[in-house]
Order: sequence, then C-alpha cells, then structure tokens
Amino acid sequence: MAATWVPDVDPDSDFSLENLPFGILGSTADPKPHAAVAIGTYILDLKALLADPGVKARLRELFPRLVGHENVFAQPSLNAFAEMGRAVHRQVRATLRDLLRADTPYPEVLRDNEALRKKVIVPQRRTRNEVPMKIGDYTDFYAGYHHAVAVGTMFRGADNALQPNYTHLPVGYHGRASSIFSTNMPIRRPFGQFLPDPAANPKQPITGLSRKLDFELELGCFISMPPIGHGTAVAVNDADEYIFGYVLLNDWSARDIQGWEYVPLGPFMSKNFATTISPWVVLADALEPFRTEAIPNPTVLQDYLKQWKRRKVFDIRLEVDLTTQDGNTTTITKTNAKNLMWSFPQMIAHHTLGGCPIRSGDLLGSGTISGPGGGSECGSLLEMSQNGKTDVVIYGDEKRTFIEDGDTITLRGWCGEDGARVGFGPCKGRVWSPAPEYGPVAYPDDFIRDMELLDE
Amino acid sequence: MAATWVPDVDPDSDFSLENLPFGILGSTADPKPHAAVAIGTYILDLKALLADPGVKARLRELFPRLVGHENVFAQPSLNAFAEMGRAVHRQVRATLRDLLRADTPYPEVLRDNEALRKKVIVPQRRTRNEVPMKIGDYTDFYAGYHHAVAVGTMFRGADNALQPNYTHLPVGYHGRASSIFSTNMPIRRPFGQFLPDPAANPKQPITGLSRKLDFELELGCFISMPPIGHGTAVAVNDADEYIFGYVLLNDWSARDIQGWEYVPLGPFMSKNFATTISPWVVLADALEPFRTEAIPNPTVLQDYLKQWKRRKVFDIRLEVDLTTQDGNTTTITKTNAKNLMWSFPQMIAHHTLGGCPIRSGDLLGSGTISGPGGGSECGSLLEMSQNGKTDVVIYGDEKRTFIEDGDTITLRGWCGEDGARVGFGPCKGRVWSPAPEYGPVAYPDDFIRDMELLDE
Repeated sequence: MAATWVPDVDPDSDFSLENLPFGILGSTADPKPHAAVAIGTYILDLKALLADPGVKARLRELFPRLVGHENVFAQPSLNAFAEMGRAVHRQVRATLRDLLRADTPYPEVLRDNEALRKKVIVPQRRTRNEVPMKIGDYTDFYAGYHHAVAVGTMFRGADNALQPNYTHLPVGYHGRASSIFSTNMPIRRPFGQFLPDPAANPKQPITGLSRKLDFELELGCFISMPPIGHGTAVAVNDADEYIFGYVLLNDWSARDIQGWEYVPLGPFMSKNFATTISPWVVLADALEPFRTEAIPNPTVLQDYLKQWKRRKVFDIRLEVDLTTQDGNTTTITKTNAKNLMWSFPQMIAHHTLGGCPIRSGDLLGSGTISGPGGGSECGSLLEMSQNGKTDVVIYGDEKRTFIEDGDTITLRGWCGEDGARVGFGPCKGRVWSPAPEYGPVAYPDDFIRDMELLDE
Repeated sequence: MAATWVPDVDPDSDFSLENLPFGILGSTADPKPHAAVAIGTYILDLKALLADPGVKARLRELFPRLVGHENVFAQPSLNAFAEMGRAVHRQVRATLRDLLRADTPYPEVLRDNEALRKKVIVPQRRTRNEVPMKIGDYTDFYAGYHHAVAVGTMFRGADNALQPNYTHLPVGYHGRASSIFSTNMPIRRPFGQFLPDPAANPKQPITGLSRKLDFELELGCFISMPPIGHGTAVAVNDADEYIFGYVLLNDWSARDIQGWEYVPLGPFMSKNFATTISPWVVLADALEPFRTEAIPNPTVLQDYLKQWKRRKVFDIRLEVDLTTQDGNTTTITKTNAKNLMWSFPQMIAHHTLGGCPIRSGDLLGSGTISGPGGGSECGSLLEMSQNGKTDVVIYGDEKRTFIEDGDTITLRGWCGEDGARVGFGPCKGRVWSPAPEYGPVAYPDDFIRDMELLDE
C-alpha cells in the first residue's frame, strides 16, 4: 500500500493513491471547466500539469499516449479522454500515480518542484465540480433484484412481484439527459399531477408539489465508445472494454406522480426533474480489485447475455445519509453494490443488441440497490416506509415517510481498506419547494451558497 | 398565391413559396453540412448566400436580425438559428420569400444575378440532407387518441381501452436521441428478445430478428428554447413561442420485442434501434394558416393544461406508402394530423411543469396518428392487421401483416392547395435484415447507394 507525498490524506479518504478518479471542475485560479484527479482533500489539475513546459518537454516519456492529444484535459468534459480507450486510461492513471507516490520515480517533476506543485495541487475547497461528461443519452436499468422484489410485492403481491421478463433480460428505460446534475445542485420538489388519495378516488388527479419525494440509491456507469461503427452490437464479454468508469447516482423520484402517470409507457415526469451524480468518475481499472459475485440468476440466459466472468459486480459499501434542516444527520441506509442481478456488461450487450448506437459519455444507471434484509438496507424510502405506511425514525424523535423540504440526501460509496480506499465522494442534494410561478427559477439564498465556488 | 422565379416548381410540390422549410445538407459543391431552404426541386444554399459579398454588403437591409450572426447558417445544425426565437425566424423567412418571388423587390440580388444564382440554387439531387438539429433529448408522446383507443382495445378490451390518466395528461416517455436518422437511412430489422408464441408459452423468450416490425406515423416538433433560465416551466399559452418547427416522424417499432419487455418501465429495445424524421423543418409560421380543432377532450383539464387557443392542432393530410422490393407502391394509410387529443403546447407545458429543462433542438413526437375509421386510416400495421391476425392487401395479390425485408415505408404529409402546398418531403426508410454478427455493420450494396450523394 503506497503512500503519497500529498499532505493530509486521511486514512478514510475516498481519494487514496489507489483511486485517482477523474473529474471536471473550475477552480478559483482557473474557473473554466477542465480536468483534474482527486487525491485526499486536494485535486491535481491535469490541464495545468500538461501546460507546464517541463512536463511538455517530457510528454513522450511520461504520457506517451497523450502525444498529439495535449489539450485533452483542457476540454469541458472527459468525453475525448474516455474515447481514447481503456489502455490509454490505464497508462495515464499509472503515471499520475507514479508522480504522486511518496517514492516517486520522477521527484523533480512535481514532488520537489514547488512552483509547479503550488499551481497544480489545489485544495478541493477552492474548486467546484461540474457534470464530468457530456451525456448524449441516459438509460436507467432495474437490476437491483431486492428492490424489484420489494416494490413488486408492495404493488402486486409476493406471487407476482417480478414480471416474467425480469430474470431473462435487464429491464431498463430511457431517462432524461438534460436534468442530470453534479453533487450539491439544489433539488426542486417537482410540481406534477397525482392522485392525492388513490384508494378513495382512483381517477381524479390534482396538480401540486409532490408529497412523496424519494431518493434512489444507484451506481452509474459511463461509456467509453471508440468510433468502431455506428450501431455496432457489443458482445457481453467485450463490454468491459467500453466502460470508462463509475459514479454514484441518485435517481430522485416522485412516487405520487409516478403512480398516476406510469401506465402504459413507464416513468416520465416522476423522474425527469433531477438526477444527481457524484462528482468524480472512478475509472474502471480502479474498481477491478473489488469484483465479486452478482445475485445468482436461476434462469438459463439467452446466449448474448452469457458472461464468462464469474465475478460480474463490485463489492462497494454504500450508505445514504439524511440530514435535516437543523443539520442533524442519520445514516438511513447501509447496503452494498453487489446486490445486482445484472452486470453493466450485460446491460451494454442488451442495449446494443438491436442496433441502438451508444456513444462515449452515455450514462447507464443500475437501478435502485437494496439489500436483502429490508429496513435500513433499502435504497429508497418507498421501500423503507412501505409507500408511506410506516415511519422511518431518524435523529432524535424525528420521523420520515418521504423527503421533507430542507432535507439533504447524501449517497456515499467506497471499497477497500483504510488508507487505500477507492470511493466516490458524496452524491448530495438538498430539497426545497419552489413557488408556483412561471419564468426563471429563483433559488433560495442559502441554496445558492451551496452552489458557489468557495474562495478564501 | 405568389409565384417564384425558380424553375420547375410543380403545383403538387411540398416546397412551394409558402413553405420554405429549413434543413441541413451537404452538396457536391460543399459537402460539409450546412443550412439551406427547399424550393420545388431545388435548394437555396443559405451558407453560400450569406457568404456572398453583395449580400454581406446589404445584410443590415436584407437580414437585420442576422447582423452579428453571419455564420449561423454555416453550422452543422439549425440549433443556433432556432435559439434566436420566432421573431427572427419570421423575419428571415420573409426576406427569403421576397428574394424568391417572381416579382421580387430585390431582383438584382438573386433573380437577375446569374453568378450567385448558379452558386446558391442547387438541384436537390446534388444534395443530401442530414438530421437538421443536434437533438439533446427526444420525448415521444401518445396523443393520437384513435391509436390509443385501438391499441388499448386490442390488449385490454373496449371497456379498459384507455388508462384513467389518458384524458388528464399527455402521456409520454423518453426516447433515444442517438438513433434518430434522416430520411433514406436504411433500417436494420432489430435483433431482440421476444415470445415467439405468447399464447402457447407466455414465459420463455427467444432471441432473434423481430418478426413484427412496424412503423408509426407521427408528427415531430423541434423546440427553440432561448436561454431563459434552467428548468423554467413554460405556460401552455406561451408554448407556441418555443416551437421551431415540425417534421414527419416514423417511430419504427418491433411489436414482439415491445410486448415482452415493456412491463413495468415502458418500451425500450422495441423502439431505440431507429427513428426516422423527414429532412426539412417546416417552420411554425408556415403551418399557422392550417390550424384546426383537436379531438375534443371531455375531461375538465388541470389549469396548467388549459389552452385558450381553440384551434390547437394542424390540418395536415398524411399518407403512408409501402413499396415492395419489386418497386410496387401501395398507399396503405390516409389520415390527418388533426387526430390528436393533445397539442404540442400542452405537451411542452406538461413536460416542463416539474422542472425538467428543455433545450433548443429537443424533439417531441406526437404519438401515432390514426383516423377514427380504422383500416386504411391506421397509423401503424399493428392496428391495420390487428396484431398480425388480418392480412393487409397491397399491390397485386401481395399481403402484409408486418413489414418484410426489402419493403420501403414512406410517410408523406402536406397542407394547402396545389401551387401553395406546405409539405414535409418524404420520410423514408427501407428495411433489411443484418447477419447476426458483432463488429461494424455491413450495409448491403443497394442500400449504400440509397445513402450516397448523387453526383452527375
């Protein structure tokens, strides 16, 4: 377990030397969005690093695969870098790790070069992350088996909990790319149509602010698709090569709007107001050491979904915190990303089977991840509160069935041991109710502060 | 009814002087995609027009709203132009009409300027249209009332044909932006999972080429959203201002794949392999004279969907041709775009109510448009053949239940009288079955010829 010369990297930091996740951010020194990696409480500014004359002069030695691509980290998204493929990601990440190791083979480049260090090693509090990829299309799957069973049981009874297709294919639907936000973006409680009391009156909706606002704990996967031909089907056992990396994903959901709108064409307004992702893309290679078994699927799979790799998913500890307006935090969920019945390679093979083109920057969501035990293993309040029937007790004597205004929901996820953690950083959103008016949105002042770049 | 000096504009041309639809194309002289308008069998190359020194010198007089935006028609999409708003579209279209009128007030600019005319008036056979907008997100609605009733009756019986939400809100779902093609793109029959005989075995799927490939006749609507604030709700009575224009849209559908996959999250692989749109965007102003009544909705609407305008939809004659491999064409559908229960402004108001951002270039589909009479008024083969139970007789003694390989489906649509038609041009796709292999797609030779730029 190698150490870094970067100061103050706590043992429980998500951003150890074993991680080096990539992001897009603006800093107080360079507000224009560009690429960086995270290390402890700092970032390494990749745009500034590659602009340094000393690094430039040694580019062929340090980053041979970036020769001719010197501006790839000055872009406002990681798409161009993603498109270069996993071999390039691996090489770049290895050199960055070498530069940041305490026993770096290139001490003169950065560790012992105070001028450059001051320029490129920046405290995270002076930076603000953007959505790291230009997302062409976003697809949300439903691979969280325990969630599917729990929700199906709630609405259709235990005997019909899963639809007949569930174990035969990774069920998914198209989501909305325009409302994907990076962490800290305030979340407006959505207006919408819903039945205020479906049991009493199943046919007369009202329009108002959702009363059943929920989170969904998911893993997100970014595609890195070289231009190999439009609409090419990706074989399931090749699909890992087309994964750039992973994020946490909160698929905010308005359960009352969803219940009224979703037949026969699926969720729409109940989901498209906001999706929050964690700020850093943990590269596929960083998660490789943490592979584990998926939930066994009893069905004999169609050939195109048969994956040779036994360990198809990742052992990632996942938690959800609910922080009240008063600042009191309760960890309401503890589960693991291994609770999936379908792997991302299976989702990709299915998605591309019929000719649907996937592109670098496309985002896939896993579907809500819940553990088998219910209760505090649930990845949504819908399950935890049994659709509002049971109180979820949080800090002090406070209770929740769904999310209230002023609440902040924070997803967290990490693998590995202290000192060598590979984690995502918080995926966070705070909820407020807007006034019912047309025209530009006015965010409350204290929410604007959440969004601002911190300057010292 | 004004005449144009452009030669050979047939009375039944979709592209009369009253239309002037905008598109993006490459030509043999300038293959890089750029903007043009259609007039008869010619195009007027807008990039070349604005690059002309004589036009440049008189820009403030001819196109005052384009001053400072001289390159707007040199872009590979119409997004920047759309974003300028309807007042600009109106002014530009009016000047183009003036330039093209037989009694043009500016004869010296183009009509009598042979050198410029030869450069900018180009036969359509020397051009090839691209998808005209950069489409961020695509949403498909279900506003075709007669289609919804017919399909609902087929699967749930007449008493439950419409879901309770249908008359309360415009039902819609997110589609796939990456597989939207312009006319003439060959359509690969999709592979997918489906039940070969659902009645005999409702739980064991197979994987193969879809056996129930269908078209859906729709109207598409492109958004022109100025940057008025992220996630702003658009009031239903303002929404016409945010419509750039319209296209025909074929929402190709694999009915067998759809039947197996669509519960509980809606259509996915059954739709995302291809959507074809007609090549020219008919601007919103060009359709204004053809407003007519929508299908009456008996429900008392929620306030945000109450539209003052009585005439909410358009009287557009719509036809679908099926052309066999042998080249024999049968018009299998004749209907009208007025067969909608929801207007595009209502769809936009609903779509934005909860905070979902819409952006210039976003595409909305109306849903399948069928007439009230069934049979040859149906906008899909699913309805016409009663899901494969009834033969649809075409040219000679040939029959169809769904689309066969080599068939070409062409949607056509136009308003107005001969000599002043406002039409869309054909929305066309020919179907073939690919070999079941991975790797880049090999199109059959004769399909490649369909796609090539014609050079003389």
